[in-house]
Amino acid sequence: MDIGLFQEHLEKSIAEICLAEGSKKPEHLYTPVSYILSLGGKRVRPLLTLMACDLFGGDYQEATSAAIAIEVFHNFSLLHDDIMDNAPLRRGKPTVHEKWNIPIAILSGDAMLVRAYQFLDYYKGETGDKLRKLFSATALQVCEGQQVDMDFETEHTVTQARYLQMISQKTAVLLGASMQMGAIVAKGSDVDATHVYEFGRQLGVAFQLQDDYLDLYGNHDSFGKKPGGDIIANKKTFMVIKALEMANRYMKEELEQWMNHPTTDPDEKVNAVKNIFDFLKIPDHTQNKIQSHSEQALKHLNLIKAPKEKKQILEEFAENLMNRIK
Amino acid sequence: MDIGLFQEHLEKSIAEICLAEGSKKPEHLYTPVSYILSLGGKRVRPLLTLMACDLFGGDYQEATSAAIAIEVFHNFSLLHDDIMDNAPLRRGKPTVHEKWNIPIAILSGDAMLVRAYQFLDYYKGETGDKLRKLFSATALQVCEGQQVDMDFETEHTVTQARYLQMISQKTAVLLGASMQMGAIVAKGSDVDATHVYEFGRQLGVAFQLQDDYLDLYGNHDSFGKKPGGDIIANKKTFMVIKALEMANRYMKEELEQWMNHPTTDPDEKVNAVKNIFDFLKIPDHTQNKIQSHSEQALKHLNLIKAPKEKKQILEEFAENLMNRIK
Repeated sequence: MDIGLFQEHLEKSIAEICLAEGSKKPEHLYTPVSYILSLGGKRVRPLLTLMACDLFGGDYQEATSAAIAIEVFHNFSLLHDDIMDNAPLRRGKPTVHEKWNIPIAILSGDAMLVRAYQFLDYYKGETGDKLRKLFSATALQVCEGQQVDMDFETEHTVTQARYLQMISQKTAVLLGASMQMGAIVAKGSDVDATHVYEFGRQLGVAFQLQDDYLDLYGNHDSFGKKPGGDIIANKKTFMVIKALEMANRYMKEELEQWMNHPTTDPDEKVNAVKNIFDFLKIPDHTQNKIQSHSEQALKHLNLIKAPKEKKQILEEFAENLMNRIK
Repeated sequence: MDIGLFQEHLEKSIAEICLAEGSKKPEHLYTPVSYILSLGGKRVRPLLTLMACDLFGGDYQEATSAAIAIEVFHNFSLLHDDIMDNAPLRRGKPTVHEKWNIPIAILSGDAMLVRAYQFLDYYKGETGDKLRKLFSATALQVCEGQQVDMDFETEHTVTQARYLQMISQKTAVLLGASMQMGAIVAKGSDVDATHVYEFGRQLGVAFQLQDDYLDLYGNHDSFGKKPGGDIIANKKTFMVIKALEMANRYMKEELEQWMNHPTTDPDEKVNAVKNIFDFLKIPDHTQNKIQSHSEQALKHLNLIKAPKEKKQILEEFAENLMNRIK
């Protein structure tokens, strides 16, 4: 399993697709598709598809179309989410609805979703049937997760369980599905396919919790944005939910005060909320939660019947992915 | 071929889907799906799928999932188009983005597109492969047509050929695909499938031209809206394009004056443009164009190898569909 080779193969495949999409007409439909796909990113999901295919003895090149379908779908969901969230930037560049306009962003996103399905047409018979069934079920879960996330904005109380389910749907199931699709292409057993799915999903939950954590506690010199963006936006992250659960009445009121009223001094707000978090040891609790999901992921990886050295590479990859946190 | 039976079967199937979607969680994702599907409409597209299946000796019930996929896709495209066009009403009821909001409308539309593909999962093997290939190609064309239609708003000159291609993509190919999907389910020959596709597509072009025509020349007592909506919105319809082609310099300037400058009196504008149309015999030219596409449709129907009495029913159905015009 040569991750560097897989990454090179993916970058080349995606570059070809960007070129092809960018030359299609009408320009306003396809140039945004090429644009968002070319913004880069770590290509974690398609890489997981190739790695899972290789893990089960398949030819990673056979999994290319499935990997591309996943990456195109992921970028479609970013494109539409950015409209919904009114986000001006994506990977430091203007979002599609900012660079063009909202109708163009909606429509080119729609075209991307169709294109994702077209990449799955490569697979026939039982393999194709299984891939499409998983892909559609996952796509619906991602929509559900995004809706629940939006619903949270107007809900007073969000429980830990619902938050964890939301990030599982919105983010983690796509990582699980990315891996399972590789297993399906390689004709891995159903039991192994389930384990590799759970490995990806648990890793995804850990990764999203880490993302929440880093928003406040990360090394922001290298991130290029100020810490505490989620606090300023009143996002109900795991840390907020945990703090509200653990706080005494006085502290809970103070936290809710900060979250429910506009402030003129964002830095003051971030500091005040951070003080509450620190007092309640929220960083430790969050790290424990991340640890627990990472361990779940590794448990499933260990249960997979596949060469030990390949599983070792996947374990290291997962650790690297999580490593930003330390 | 019992159209009444097919319609009843479709209404029952769609009602079941509305009930099922409407009870799924999260509510804000699925209630809009149920809402837009329950707004009604003539269900022309899924009906064409069942009719085409029956035409080629298939069991119409076997075509139900394909028919539903088409209807769900059609309603998805209406839902997203209504956001793009800023439309307040759909079939006399508030549009989804008006009743809920734009993020919910985008996301529930996305979920509908995925649901449409899920209905196609019913079909396995070669039939499934053919259906999905046609469905995705058609879906992309519908997106392309919508984008070109939006592009027209800011273009000075639109030719007849480009206008006809636009309505073919935005509207007509879906009618063609609706029929071809019925043929595919019934395992009709590829030649017949092409003819039935062209029958549907040409009928779709004729239908859209008639829609343009009726916007100004229809019986507006029964339509419930004022004539000339397209003129007020400066839409570059076939009639406008034809008029600009045929007008002398003076008349062309007058028409462009009306189209390019805001007016305080919409009735005056509609009357002035209508006078130009009437002088240039645009109604006759439009009728001739409609007639020519209707004849093309029937030519393809005649070439199909299928029982004469069934083709007769399809011909009558097409005539009824176009009959609003007389």
